[in-house]
Amino acid sequence: MSSTLASDRVTARLERARAAARQAGVDALVITPGPDLQYLTGVVKHSHERLSALLLPVDGDAAFVVPTLERPGLDGTAVDAMETLTWTDGVDPHALAASRLGGARRVAVVADMPALHVLGLRDALPQASLELATPVLRELRMRKDDVEVDALRRAGAAIDAVHARVPGWLVAGRTEAEVGADITAAILEEGHAEAAFVIVGSGPNGASPHHEVSDRMIQAGDVVVVDIGGPLPDGYNSDSTRTYVVGEPGDEVRDVYAVLQRAQAAAVAAARPGVTAESVDEAARAIIRDAGHGEYFVHRTGHGIGLEVHEEPYIVAGNDLVLEPGMAFSIEPGIYFPGRWGARIEDIVVVTDDGCEPVNRQPHDLLSC
Amino acid sequence: MSSTLASDRVTARLERARAAARQAGVDALVITPGPDLQYLTGVVKHSHERLSALLLPVDGDAAFVVPTLERPGLDGTAVDAMETLTWTDGVDPHALAASRLGGARRVAVVADMPALHVLGLRDALPQASLELATPVLRELRMRKDDVEVDALRRAGAAIDAVHARVPGWLVAGRTEAEVGADITAAILEEGHAEAAFVIVGSGPNGASPHHEVSDRMIQAGDVVVVDIGGPLPDGYNSDSTRTYVVGEPGDEVRDVYAVLQRAQAAAVAAARPGVTAESVDEAARAIIRDAGHGEYFVHRTGHGIGLEVHEEPYIVAGNDLVLEPGMAFSIEPGIYFPGRWGARIEDIVVVTDDGCEPVNRQPHDLLSC
Repeated sequence: MSSTLASDRVTARLERARAAARQAGVDALVITPGPDLQYLTGVVKHSHERLSALLLPVDGDAAFVVPTLERPGLDGTAVDAMETLTWTDGVDPHALAASRLGGARRVAVVADMPALHVLGLRDALPQASLELATPVLRELRMRKDDVEVDALRRAGAAIDAVHARVPGWLVAGRTEAEVGADITAAILEEGHAEAAFVIVGSGPNGASPHHEVSDRMIQAGDVVVVDIGGPLPDGYNSDSTRTYVVGEPGDEVRDVYAVLQRAQAAAVAAARPGVTAESVDEAARAIIRDAGHGEYFVHRTGHGIGLEVHEEPYIVAGNDLVLEPGMAFSIEPGIYFPGRWGARIEDIVVVTDDGCEPVNRQPHDLLSC
Repeated sequence: MSSTLASDRVTARLERARAAARQAGVDALVITPGPDLQYLTGVVKHSHERLSALLLPVDGDAAFVVPTLERPGLDGTAVDAMETLTWTDGVDPHALAASRLGGARRVAVVADMPALHVLGLRDALPQASLELATPVLRELRMRKDDVEVDALRRAGAAIDAVHARVPGWLVAGRTEAEVGADITAAILEEGHAEAAFVIVGSGPNGASPHHEVSDRMIQAGDVVVVDIGGPLPDGYNSDSTRTYVVGEPGDEVRDVYAVLQRAQAAAVAAARPGVTAESVDEAARAIIRDAGHGEYFVHRTGHGIGLEVHEEPYIVAGNDLVLEPGMAFSIEPGIYFPGRWGARIEDIVVVTDDGCEPVNRQPHDLLSC
C-alpha cells in the first residue's frame, strides 16, 4: 500500500465524485481497491478476499472499511483523515459496510469489484439497487489533468525506449517467447513497474490481435506485431505497437502497410475537441475499407488509457461522446489476414486545445530487422 | 493465453463441477478468466473489459463466450471442443451469454468476476438469481490431486531457495525496498513466473502483518519479517515467511519467538484428516494465548493455496470444515507488538493420510544476519 496524491487533490476529487454521483441520482459510491480508489485517494492497495472499500455517500462523510490487520498500511494516506471501520476475521464486512450506508437506495460499485463483494453487498443492502459507478467516475477520470498528462508522456517515452531496442532482438531462429523475455526485461529496465503485456505476433500469429507469445520460431520474411506496455511506478500506463519485418517486405506487405499507415495518421489528424469518438474510428476505418481491407480490421480503433490500460473513452462505432481536451486514448488500427499475417500501429494521444498530441514518437514505418 | 491441462482431465473436472452444481441445486455456472477457469479447462487468459466466459449448464453442453479478436488465442485449448460464441465490439455480450443459459433460475458466478459482468448478467437474466460459485467449486479445488501436490512441492522448493539467500541481503543501512528488489529478482531467478508479493517488515514495520516494503533503513538489532511468494509458470503458488534478526536478538525477542515457534509446530502437528480447520487454528492460538500474547496474534492461522495464494480452506475460528487428504494451506501464526516489532513463521502444508507434509523446508529458527 502506498499513497501518491496530495491531500488537496484528494479532497477535490472526492468532492467532484460526490457531485457527479448526485447529478446522476446515485446515493452512494462503494470503491474497492483498484484504479478508481487510486484515482480518488492515491491509495494503492492489494486486494485479496478480505473487503477493503471506500464508502462515499453523496450526503455524509467518507468512511473506509478495512481489515484490522491491514489498517497500519493506511497510515499516512488520505484515509487517515476519514473514519475507518476495521473488522477482524469472522465478522461480516458487508454488513459492516451496509451499516454505514444508511438508507441509500441507489448504490454504485466500481466495475472491477469482485463478485464476492458485489453479491455480499447486494445481500447486506436488500433495500438498495446496485449499479456500476463507471458512468459517474468516468466523468472525472476521462479528462486528464496536467499532472496526469505528464505521467502519460513519461510512460510514452519509456515504452518508446523499449521499441527502439526491439530490432536487435528480432532475429530469425529465435522464438517469440525468447524475444518476449528480452522485451519484458527491457520494459522493467526502462522504468516500468511491471511488464503488463507483451505481444510478439510473428507471421500468422500477427493476425491474432490479442496473441501474446508462443514457441513459434521467427522466420526470415516474417512480419511481426509487437504490442507492449505497462504501468510506471505512479500507476499510469504505456501502450504502443509497432510492426517489424525480418528482412525485406514483399509487395503485398508493403502495399497493405502503407494503407494502415495512412489510416492511423488520418485518425490522429481527426482527433480534436468537438468531434465524436466514433468519428475518429471512422477516419481510420474509411481508409482501410476504401482500400478493400475493411473486413480485416476486426476491432475498434482505440481505448482510453491512464491508471488502466483500457478505460473510457472507447474509440468505437456507436460512441457519440464528444472529445474534450485532456482525453487520452490509443489510436491503433490493424489489418489481419487470418492464418497469414497482420499489422498494427498504435500510439497514445492526448487531446489538446486544437488537435491531439501523440505521446509516442517512434517512427511509424515498417521497420526491417 | 495458454492451456496446460490434458483433455481427459478437463473432461473429468467439468463433469465433477456439473455434479457438484447439480448437488447444490445450481442450474448453471458462469466462469470468467481466472483461477477457476484455469482449474477447469487449463485456459489461462488475461481478462480485460471484454467478456470472456465459460458457460456450464448442469444439463446441456458447455459453451464459451469470447470476443472475436481473442478467439484465435483459444486454438489448441480445451475450448476448441466446445461451442464458441464470438462477439464483436458493439454487441451486448451479456445478452449473448444469457441466450445460451436458457431458463436457468440459479446461476452461480465465480468470486472474482468483475462487477461489470456480474451486473451485466444480472440485467440480462432477469428471471435468474445470481450466487457465488465458490461453494460448488471449492469442493473440487480444495482437494489437490497428485499433480497439484507435486506443483506445490516445486513451488515450496523454489521459495525456500530464495529464503536461503535472504540473510546476505539483510544488512543494516539498506532500505526495505532495496532488500525487496533483491528478493524480487531472486523469486524470478528461482523459477517463479511472477513475484506476487514481497513483504520486508523491519523493526516496527514487522508489526504490520500486511506491510510490503518501505524506504525505512534497516538497523542493527532489527527483527525483520520476510513473507514472499508467487506463482510458478504452471500457476501454482508459493508462500513462505521467515523472521530474521540483524545481529543478536535480545531476551524479549528470543522468548516471544520461542513461543511462536512452538505455536507453529503445534498447528502442524494438529493438521491431519478428520480434524476441523478451526482446531488447527486453536492449536497455535492456545499456545500464544497461554504465553500471554493472545491479543497480539491478530489474524487467522492460515489460508488454502493452489492456483490462488488465498483460497479455501481457511484455517480460522468458526470454520468447522473437516480436513481431508490433499487439502493444502498455510500455517502461519504471528505475534505483533504495534509500533515495536513482530514475527511470523509460515509454511505451506498438504494433508496426508495420517498427518500433513510441509512443502517448505527452511529452518524455523530466528536467523541472525
